[in-house]
Amino acid sequence: MIGGRRPLHGRKPADRRVRVERPHSPYFRYTGRNQLVAKAAAHEPKTALGRTWARIRKIAIGRPLASEEEIGERLSKKKALAIFSSDAISSSAYATEEILRVLVLAGAGVALSLSLEEAAAISVLLAVVALSYRQVCRAYPSGGGAYSVSRENLGALASLVAAAALLIDYVMTVAVSTASAVAQAYSVVPSLYDIRIEIAVVAIALITTANLRGLRESGNIFAIPTYLFLGLALSMIGIGVVNVVTGQAVDIHQADAVQNGTEGLGLFLLLKAFASGSVALTGTEAIANGVPAFQPPEAKNAANTLVAMAVLLGVLFIGITFVSDAYGIEPTVDGGQTVVALVAGTIFGAGSPLFYLFQASTALILFLAANTSFNAFPRLAALLAIDGYIPRQFAFRGDRLAFSYGIVLLATIAAALLVFFGGDTHALIPLYSVGVFVCFTLSQIGMVRHWSRHRERGWWWRAAINGFGAVLTAIVLIVVASVKFADGAYLVVILIPLIVGAMLFIKLQYDASRRELAVRRDLVFASPKREERVVIPIPGVTRAVIQAVNVGRSISEDVRAVFITENPEDAQALRDRWERQLPGVPLVVVESPYRALTGPLEAYLDVLDAAWPPDKTSPITFVVLPEYVARRWWERILYNQSVKRLRSALLGRPHTVVVNVPYRREDPTLFERTPVADSGGSTETPAEP
Amino acid sequence: MIGGRRPLHGRKPADRRVRVERPHSPYFRYTGRNQLVAKAAAHEPKTALGRTWARIRKIAIGRPLASEEEIGERLSKKKALAIFSSDAISSSAYATEEILRVLVLAGAGVALSLSLEEAAAISVLLAVVALSYRQVCRAYPSGGGAYSVSRENLGALASLVAAAALLIDYVMTVAVSTASAVAQAYSVVPSLYDIRIEIAVVAIALITTANLRGLRESGNIFAIPTYLFLGLALSMIGIGVVNVVTGQAVDIHQADAVQNGTEGLGLFLLLKAFASGSVALTGTEAIANGVPAFQPPEAKNAANTLVAMAVLLGVLFIGITFVSDAYGIEPTVDGGQTVVALVAGTIFGAGSPLFYLFQASTALILFLAANTSFNAFPRLAALLAIDGYIPRQFAFRGDRLAFSYGIVLLATIAAALLVFFGGDTHALIPLYSVGVFVCFTLSQIGMVRHWSRHRERGWWWRAAINGFGAVLTAIVLIVVASVKFADGAYLVVILIPLIVGAMLFIKLQYDASRRELAVRRDLVFASPKREERVVIPIPGVTRAVIQAVNVGRSISEDVRAVFITENPEDAQALRDRWERQLPGVPLVVVESPYRALTGPLEAYLDVLDAAWPPDKTSPITFVVLPEYVARRWWERILYNQSVKRLRSALLGRPHTVVVNVPYRREDPTLFERTPVADSGGSTETPAEP
Repeated sequence: MIGGRRPLHGRKPADRRVRVERPHSPYFRYTGRNQLVAKAAAHEPKTALGRTWARIRKIAIGRPLASEEEIGERLSKKKALAIFSSDAISSSAYATEEILRVLVLAGAGVALSLSLEEAAAISVLLAVVALSYRQVCRAYPSGGGAYSVSRENLGALASLVAAAALLIDYVMTVAVSTASAVAQAYSVVPSLYDIRIEIAVVAIALITTANLRGLRESGNIFAIPTYLFLGLALSMIGIGVVNVVTGQAVDIHQADAVQNGTEGLGLFLLLKAFASGSVALTGTEAIANGVPAFQPPEAKNAANTLVAMAVLLGVLFIGITFVSDAYGIEPTVDGGQTVVALVAGTIFGAGSPLFYLFQASTALILFLAANTSFNAFPRLAALLAIDGYIPRQFAFRGDRLAFSYGIVLLATIAAALLVFFGGDTHALIPLYSVGVFVCFTLSQIGMVRHWSRHRERGWWWRAAINGFGAVLTAIVLIVVASVKFADGAYLVVILIPLIVGAMLFIKLQYDASRRELAVRRDLVFASPKREERVVIPIPGVTRAVIQAVNVGRSISEDVRAVFITENPEDAQALRDRWERQLPGVPLVVVESPYRALTGPLEAYLDVLDAAWPPDKTSPITFVVLPEYVARRWWERILYNQSVKRLRSALLGRPHTVVVNVPYRREDPTLFERTPVADSGGSTETPAEP
Repeated sequence: MIGGRRPLHGRKPADRRVRVERPHSPYFRYTGRNQLVAKAAAHEPKTALGRTWARIRKIAIGRPLASEEEIGERLSKKKALAIFSSDAISSSAYATEEILRVLVLAGAGVALSLSLEEAAAISVLLAVVALSYRQVCRAYPSGGGAYSVSRENLGALASLVAAAALLIDYVMTVAVSTASAVAQAYSVVPSLYDIRIEIAVVAIALITTANLRGLRESGNIFAIPTYLFLGLALSMIGIGVVNVVTGQAVDIHQADAVQNGTEGLGLFLLLKAFASGSVALTGTEAIANGVPAFQPPEAKNAANTLVAMAVLLGVLFIGITFVSDAYGIEPTVDGGQTVVALVAGTIFGAGSPLFYLFQASTALILFLAANTSFNAFPRLAALLAIDGYIPRQFAFRGDRLAFSYGIVLLATIAAALLVFFGGDTHALIPLYSVGVFVCFTLSQIGMVRHWSRHRERGWWWRAAINGFGAVLTAIVLIVVASVKFADGAYLVVILIPLIVGAMLFIKLQYDASRRELAVRRDLVFASPKREERVVIPIPGVTRAVIQAVNVGRSISEDVRAVFITENPEDAQALRDRWERQLPGVPLVVVESPYRALTGPLEAYLDVLDAAWPPDKTSPITFVVLPEYVARRWWERILYNQSVKRLRSALLGRPHTVVVNVPYRREDPTLFERTPVADSGGSTETPAEP
């Protein structure tokens, strides 16, 4: 195995002859004439540096997976619940607090006791949205995200609005969940408050690494804390309810509660509390997006998992709100405990092992929620890249079947947001809900169109469910965008059109280049007869130059070297030497009193183009550049600066092809056996022109 | 003129035929067979973007200058004094204050009155150093910086120590002079204190721009303020002395003076004051470094200018110290007036026009002092680059005969230091003097060696002068490094060996590559007979691919295309099309279940290398990469990502040459007249593999 990974040219002749009989065997298997399938060894890096890097990556992100193994990555319902539902379920850790933080503005007592009604109303909304999404799972077994559903039913523009909203949403999920997880941590250890941003960034880095390892291991890593959180949270609510029923619940008194406000309890405040609490619904769509990751039958499994998730979330949200209401718990000032931590501390006893375990599992499920986006964002980005709306590199896959570009981009933006907003959950929330409800609404409208077009059995009641969902989520969208506008929702309202515009622009670019590059299918392209000419800019007589000249002579008979200098005496000495050592290759000396390099070379090529006999059309000039191959990072600074400048100047020239001839230290006999140098007294200059 | 700048290939055929007779004429003049001299037009950029950029550069930094014009850049003594002496002379603006700031620690009265004695002692040191450097001008008319003198007389290591000290010194000159100039500004307008760092950074940016324009205009820009400062400062001292003599000088009372200390007036404090004041000597060596910039006779003119400078500096330094002593002026707290501003305010009257004019000219001459380094640093960097101690790009010249890399590097480091030290002159001073005295000492020791080796007439007394200078400056070096060690001098003591180490490392690298690349002078290199093979990785059938295949077919008969895919169905469709449209070019399909691109291609090339018949040696594989030429910045993101990855992976391969075939939108008939595409219904993918 190890032997098969080494490049063949490093082998001894005897060894090599054995290989020659079946040279492909370590890397490929044949499936037909000129038809090969790459084995894992074909992906091994060939250089020492590359091998070291691969070894580090293997330790950090695991061994590469082939496409065939992907089916093994399918998720059981239990694992899928852990991965896809954590976003929704974990929002129970902060949704109650968001409601309370608004109601507290209207003072304690009556206002705060309304939190339970608010939570109940939001849970009804949740039920409607979940029922609507169940239908998406069945209608789109290949994955019915808001983007796909809108694209199929509402056209490109609506789908791009959905895509932009989703992308923002995924970023916000990572930022908000991580911030809330860190808040759970400093609820237990207050001194962590001062390094909350550092903790959040490190946590995102860890989740990023886990995701670069691939989907399945994410499931394994995260299943346990999810079920631990569910178990503990349900127990906590159960104990709390029993306490209330048995009359043991007493109002606790907090020293660090935020000051109660004196705002009137008007409709605006109630709507604002509702809008804040509706953050509980974020992540409900994750399962519908991820249907293909379920084990078969995918649609049915996904739909059932969705119901389980909605029920669990509803119970947790109402339960936590009920218990906190019964104990008179209020939100604390910055750096204090979270509401959910206060509830847990009251029920389990602050400082008890169960309290610590609950806080740990809450923080972990919040990280898991962030992880949801790490699954969804790169998949959506890849879809968009395949459709040509974002740069193609987002559809490249990494070794572990993960879309590395998307993962890294998501992590970077989320970490930047966290740093910018000082790691504060509440500051981030207003940016969060708008995108979510844009997606909900577009999805449900799309589903109505879907049912009315396909008219399967029972289409009308299915359309009615989705229609009801669409109307409800549209109303909530308007409410959320209005009441939270000044708090930050306006940013999302600005961002969505900007992102849509950028995606349309990229699409136009790719479409234009595709049209330009298209070739008619009925043409046959024969080998052209064409003039060629080779021009080699040289810095002197060096091995790298002689290699380049030899490559030039194998391309064409018409080879000339160009020496650009500011010093005419250098030029004469070089000409004498050149004509003695490389007879037959004309040397053109260009004196450049302005000390420039690229300008005179380009001008000389223009002159050659003009002088080309007019009866020969479409000539090519090959510009051969000797290049010294860097093995170490500092060599990139020390060598090839001039080559780089020449190369980028020449790539835009018509009729010109740039040929890079590498000179590698390891390989002094590359192309031609030049004798070992007599370094004493020689005045050659190194490779760089 | 304008017509001559346009690329010839853009012309109409009739126009072109005229050019063909003398196609070189707009760009070059012939000086022999295959011997051209570039005209200015040959340096004009050929693309629209390049032309725009050149226009901006022309506005910002002026038109390009040819080497022939350099002699016109030679400086008269008057201009040379302005450019090279400003560093030394301007230090009179802060040297007195640096002495006072130390003495004040021992309380007012006796201690402060010692400032005049300190200044006198430093002036004696100045006289000795100036006499020593006069001899350097005569002995090294080609420019006798500490680096050149040490290299010639003391060997490579000493010269590198001198070079490192000089580089640090130049950076410190920019930082300290700019900080002091800004302090003069906020001495007049106190509210500028809060934006001192911003002002300093903008000032450095302006000086950088001026220097990118070239040397002569620097002289013109800066001569007037220098002579204005000299005139005003000498008048101020004159008035002050007359006032003292006539008994009109009275002790002024300052509200914002720093608290007098209670330290005993021991030897350490006196030495520390001396070390602080010795900053007055910085810049004395500038003239000896810049001898070749003088008008002939260079050595004599430089030596005389040096004497003028030393006398002026001595008078200013002692004069300002005398007047400030007579008026009992003490240094102020942070953000208050500088000592020199207090002197000017006292003599000219605070708020009088002369006071404002003096402050302006002081700030300007300090900026001029910073400018000294912008002349010296890039010249030294270029010398070091030519000798192979720092990366070669520092020897590239920009359009205006200025060494752009060095200028930009100097500005960047100095601005960073200013920001880091909060724009505070006093905080920067301890880092300043050590480097200066290292250079002085090494120069003078080198000169002693010089005289004792050359033994010209009168060599012994010349050696005695330099020997005395060496001993004196060595003692001062030890004093400065000791008493200022904890205040920041230790940084310089650490930095110098680090810089020397880095330069030795780079030298080793370049020497090793030169030896590797050296070619024996007695060999003749004939055209090699060698096998070639072309491999073209393709993303489908596009115009860019057909261009690449055509280029491949002109390089060799043995051309094969490689299609790497994860989807076998795609592969079959492509093969059918390929064999119909490009008969004779075998298509190899590599299925890559791991979705990688570079790994399978490298493995396939390894297989080809191994399968090459063993009797043919040194084959070359040309890997032809179709590349879509980006015209806009966003196109660099949208296209060629895969090409970049392939290119960098393949550059390290033995026996492999990478050929980049650009596809330019503007040029659809490049290489071959492919018919205009029938875009309807075609399924081609764009250029990127």
